[in-house]
Amino acid sequence: MAEARSGRQVQLDSYPRGEVRLEDFRVVEVEVDEPGPGEVLVRNTWTSVDPALRLRFAPDAPPGYFPAFPLHAAMDGIVTVGEVVASRAEGFGVGDTVWHAAGWRDYAVVAAGVPALNGLATLRRLDTELAPPQAYLGPLGGMGLTAYMGLFEAAELGEGDVVWVSAAAGAVGSLAAQFARINGNRVIGSAGSAEKVAFLLDELGLDAAFDYRAGSVAELLEAAAPEGIDVYFDNVGGDHLEAALGALRPGGRVALCGAISDYETVEPSPGPSNLFQATANQLTLRGFRGSAYAGRIEEVQERVAGWLASGELLYRESVTEGLENAPRALVEMLAGRSIGKSLVQIA
Amino acid sequence: MAEARSGRQVQLDSYPRGEVRLEDFRVVEVEVDEPGPGEVLVRNTWTSVDPALRLRFAPDAPPGYFPAFPLHAAMDGIVTVGEVVASRAEGFGVGDTVWHAAGWRDYAVVAAGVPALNGLATLRRLDTELAPPQAYLGPLGGMGLTAYMGLFEAAELGEGDVVWVSAAAGAVGSLAAQFARINGNRVIGSAGSAEKVAFLLDELGLDAAFDYRAGSVAELLEAAAPEGIDVYFDNVGGDHLEAALGALRPGGRVALCGAISDYETVEPSPGPSNLFQATANQLTLRGFRGSAYAGRIEEVQERVAGWLASGELLYRESVTEGLENAPRALVEMLAGRSIGKSLVQIA
Repeated sequence: MAEARSGRQVQLDSYPRGEVRLEDFRVVEVEVDEPGPGEVLVRNTWTSVDPALRLRFAPDAPPGYFPAFPLHAAMDGIVTVGEVVASRAEGFGVGDTVWHAAGWRDYAVVAAGVPALNGLATLRRLDTELAPPQAYLGPLGGMGLTAYMGLFEAAELGEGDVVWVSAAAGAVGSLAAQFARINGNRVIGSAGSAEKVAFLLDELGLDAAFDYRAGSVAELLEAAAPEGIDVYFDNVGGDHLEAALGALRPGGRVALCGAISDYETVEPSPGPSNLFQATANQLTLRGFRGSAYAGRIEEVQERVAGWLASGELLYRESVTEGLENAPRALVEMLAGRSIGKSLVQIA
Repeated sequence: MAEARSGRQVQLDSYPRGEVRLEDFRVVEVEVDEPGPGEVLVRNTWTSVDPALRLRFAPDAPPGYFPAFPLHAAMDGIVTVGEVVASRAEGFGVGDTVWHAAGWRDYAVVAAGVPALNGLATLRRLDTELAPPQAYLGPLGGMGLTAYMGLFEAAELGEGDVVWVSAAAGAVGSLAAQFARINGNRVIGSAGSAEKVAFLLDELGLDAAFDYRAGSVAELLEAAAPEGIDVYFDNVGGDHLEAALGALRPGGRVALCGAISDYETVEPSPGPSNLFQATANQLTLRGFRGSAYAGRIEEVQERVAGWLASGELLYRESVTEGLENAPRALVEMLAGRSIGKSLVQIA
């Protein structure tokens, strides 16, 4: 028998009300099981920090969304990359790099072929020649899928469309903005600091960008797009969506990707007061989740890997070292202090 | 020379703030011009009273919508049926029944071939064998077009979909609800009185109906559709739209036809606070205007006339006699005291 193995896991200790605090989490050392038949044991190397995790930190997660994380237990449904250290599952061998959804812990026992909660990160071997392992938590993973499908499916991006992407320095936003730029569209990005605006203009090469904290979002958008916009990729909701509804030209489209502005509020915020614009200008607002397009992940990975390899696509990470610092990475991201995809390097 | 002819017209005397009052209008007698080259003189017989007129009773009409009506002038853009009494336009003869957009007046001089403001009621001869003239202000006109396109295009109504239509006793709503019923869908209607609910159930033959004033809209909807809905035809906005977002099943669709609940408010109301449901459940909200589909009016007229002739489609009118009573008809309709299409019989 192998010596009993132990590893850390991050658990939710209490459900935050309002802002997430470090005290809402605890790190515990637990014994690690050996894999049973059809299972692998993975030593996790990289794990993901996503805005939408916030939605699961409440006993009453929004109906239709993923269920709340239980307290004092491993958090399932967080995409993670690791290396197989023991396998009793056909098709998986020691040394394989895989992704799965049992994140925020050192080791995970994962059953092959059991669909992950989000439909995407079911245990799968990754091609590390196409891109480094952690890219599968970003542009080659759910983030890339979400940005791609939001833009080309939900918003039906077409030739000549002027596109606004909010939270454009964020993980999904920076991909969506660049996909649109690579597609030949005029792209306006917004973000929450002058540093991020510089990143959008100088590094991502967007056509225009503004700091939404510098004034009224509607006025800033109008200055950046005086003739209006055709597509809005919404990562924010609230006043951003309201500004978009006022700026969208007839036939315009909104991809509703999520509303980070709401994730930390205790009471739901009112929606846009100018939804009538949708009727007046025949606008379409389409909510979507990248995971619904899980069946198309390989198509996206292939295209995105090509853009990464050619240098057309810039991909920036905010890496936090050490599993124990995952809660801090989340707090930083929700506070808007990170640029690009937030990742935790476990080992 | 013919004797100078005069006729009445209803004019806006002041822009209402909040509820429309009869004092906001005046009726004046004006001299009627003879038609010039390419024009016809029409004696109007029926004119239309529409909720959306309210939007043009403010100096600051919503951007992207039709402009405000000027004060102390004839109101253009109101669909009307009449009889040609003099013609200098090719293709139009004395005695022809026509529609045009110069309503709320006894006589109108109308130029042939000049597109009407709403793109639909450009001067056109009507086939009075297909249906009586006033039907062209209802099921065979913009109302029918709006209901039809909202349901089948904006909401992409499909087989097996459960449909909720709000303001289902209204002009557009009663058509949309019946089109869905004729299409074989399960239809829930809502309206603002027990009398209207009885009309929906007993006369329109809907599967379920509720009086939205009887409680929380969300709870009433849940009781009528415990397993949720797939399509919501929105004539109301506000709490109705919020209830729909909570009840729509994954992949559900909303046709945003207008928001009568907002038309009389001075300040814009907040939008739905649960728009996140659109992301969680991959919902599509599509704003539309029937007039955008003006090119398909004959297809709709043909189908709708068939349903009227077969008795499958019930069409109810609230007829007000006398041009001078048009403002009263509008006030009644905005207050929710009318059932079916509001019409004014001029002569």
